[in-house]
Amino acid sequence: MGKVFSTIEWKQGKVRLIDQTRLPGKLVYIDCKDIKPLWYAIRKLKVRGAPALGIAASLGVVLGLKDSTARNFSDFVKELDGIIRYLASARPTAVNLFWALERMKRTALKNAKRPISQIKKILLKEALSIMEEDKRACRRMATFGARLIRSGDRILTHCNAGALATADYGTALGVMYRAKQEGKDIKVYVDETRPLLQGARLTAWELLQHKIDATLICDNMAATLMAQGKVDKIIVGADRIASNGDVANKIGTYSLAVLADYHKIPFYVVAPVSTFDFALKNGRNIPIEQRDPREVAEICKKRIAPKGVKVYNPAFDVTPNALITAIVTEKGIFKRRPFSKTLRRLYV
Amino acid sequence: MGKVFSTIEWKQGKVRLIDQTRLPGKLVYIDCKDIKPLWYAIRKLKVRGAPALGIAASLGVVLGLKDSTARNFSDFVKELDGIIRYLASARPTAVNLFWALERMKRTALKNAKRPISQIKKILLKEALSIMEEDKRACRRMATFGARLIRSGDRILTHCNAGALATADYGTALGVMYRAKQEGKDIKVYVDETRPLLQGARLTAWELLQHKIDATLICDNMAATLMAQGKVDKIIVGADRIASNGDVANKIGTYSLAVLADYHKIPFYVVAPVSTFDFALKNGRNIPIEQRDPREVAEICKKRIAPKGVKVYNPAFDVTPNALITAIVTEKGIFKRRPFSKTLRRLYV
Repeated sequence: MGKVFSTIEWKQGKVRLIDQTRLPGKLVYIDCKDIKPLWYAIRKLKVRGAPALGIAASLGVVLGLKDSTARNFSDFVKELDGIIRYLASARPTAVNLFWALERMKRTALKNAKRPISQIKKILLKEALSIMEEDKRACRRMATFGARLIRSGDRILTHCNAGALATADYGTALGVMYRAKQEGKDIKVYVDETRPLLQGARLTAWELLQHKIDATLICDNMAATLMAQGKVDKIIVGADRIASNGDVANKIGTYSLAVLADYHKIPFYVVAPVSTFDFALKNGRNIPIEQRDPREVAEICKKRIAPKGVKVYNPAFDVTPNALITAIVTEKGIFKRRPFSKTLRRLYV
Repeated sequence: MGKVFSTIEWKQGKVRLIDQTRLPGKLVYIDCKDIKPLWYAIRKLKVRGAPALGIAASLGVVLGLKDSTARNFSDFVKELDGIIRYLASARPTAVNLFWALERMKRTALKNAKRPISQIKKILLKEALSIMEEDKRACRRMATFGARLIRSGDRILTHCNAGALATADYGTALGVMYRAKQEGKDIKVYVDETRPLLQGARLTAWELLQHKIDATLICDNMAATLMAQGKVDKIIVGADRIASNGDVANKIGTYSLAVLADYHKIPFYVVAPVSTFDFALKNGRNIPIEQRDPREVAEICKKRIAPKGVKVYNPAFDVTPNALITAIVTEKGIFKRRPFSKTLRRLYV
């Protein structure tokens, strides 16, 4: 069971992306041959999802260096730093983006002695490795995560943590695809995920392609489903995870975690190790992106709220570790008992 | 401080309504001179809000009987029963609608001995009394409720429980208008309230007219505001309240109540006594209206979700009394200690 589309690809010197803002109406690919349209694609969420952002950023470095005329390594690194700063400015929360940029920088520094033309090739190879590793990580997360799913489970998910958020078949959704492949019968409730409706537009679309029983709800309907005993598990992705297991993810995730706690429903996060930010002790210092008020006040470019009303539009929230049952990574399932102990084996 | 518009009026033999589906873009009044367009206005939420539905239904009875050719009381009552059944079929959850219809029926029966033409006049008078009583109830609820508000309070509300939901200045919002009038400085967070966006469209519009500091959020952002300590109180309206204080209100209310409990934030419901359904011991048997899936799958008539996805679209949820700090009515503030005791004075 593979992907029927490629979220992000390197194709003849270009980064080919699905324009996710057009889904599910139209499946349109865009080719970025320069760094600027790629930056714009990231900012405007044409490509989104933490792992996919890591891949996009690393390929962005390759695009940015393509026309480099640097003759020595010191000039080359200056250019590289500028490119990294530029790409890092596209979106602030998903740490995979910064992780990938750092990895590209380290790779360049490790190869300082080589000719510039060769370093460029090595950097492309590194970016493609990041993509390949993400594919393998998806498969491993799915295999581990599927162990948590029983046949008959009714699973609630938020935003899109699927194939469209990764190079392969996703994090949270990958677990569901794998469970289905193993013959488990599942039913999925999909939060529409205001304001940008990634659940309604992207997750519902993916689930239908995988012939999984999918029911769309508004975000504010999740609680009543839980009260009716209709949700067995909640599974979401992550944009940044602190050392203690606090999780930043799409706005609305924290709300679900509190509701899950109240209704005694297990709450799982699925994310590759590249989503961990071990420099952060806890989630308090995760930068939260504030986005354009028009994303809330307008829908489909039509104004819905009266002129003059203020808008608060954070793109993410932070779920404290105490509300998370387990975090599934490509290195296994990490249960809360507490995370400060279990997660140590990822970085000690 | 009065209303700058009339949500519902009796005007020269017609029911004049604001078409609330057009707000905030356009302030359009519609005149219903027959019962059918009124039924349609109720069903399509051109007029909505529990108290306003009670008034609309009672005036609907008057419209329905307008052309009655009944020559005797028994024929008249048969017609009346048909009209009541018809109006009762428009929306199932807000009990004020049924309460008003029953009151109209009782009034007719009490005057069985009078000539039909006179009964018709008495019924119009009764409908206008229901409207006048609602106005007085709004003022009294506001006065009681404002006692709960301190200057500096940051209040979160859901859906629209304002002037547009009543004949006067509202239930939950009336409390805020009164607090402001008393010189208290308040800030209000408005849940947009998917799927029909009554918060974004109606509540934000009302609050701006009253020059109250209003900030619009998506429903899934309320939790993160609470976690940041930015919400001091939650105040909402109600569509039906059971004898034990369980409250049916716009979908998403229950979610807020659980979140309020977790964050130790007081959760208040403001509703007139006509919203109580003393025939129900608890909220379990409140009928919950299921609405058209397109309300979720389409926005502004544009399809956002892929074809083929299922949709769950309940218009209301039930908040158990344990999560409610107090219910404010025109008869005073009823605290939970428990409601089974305090609320008894409303019906014993």
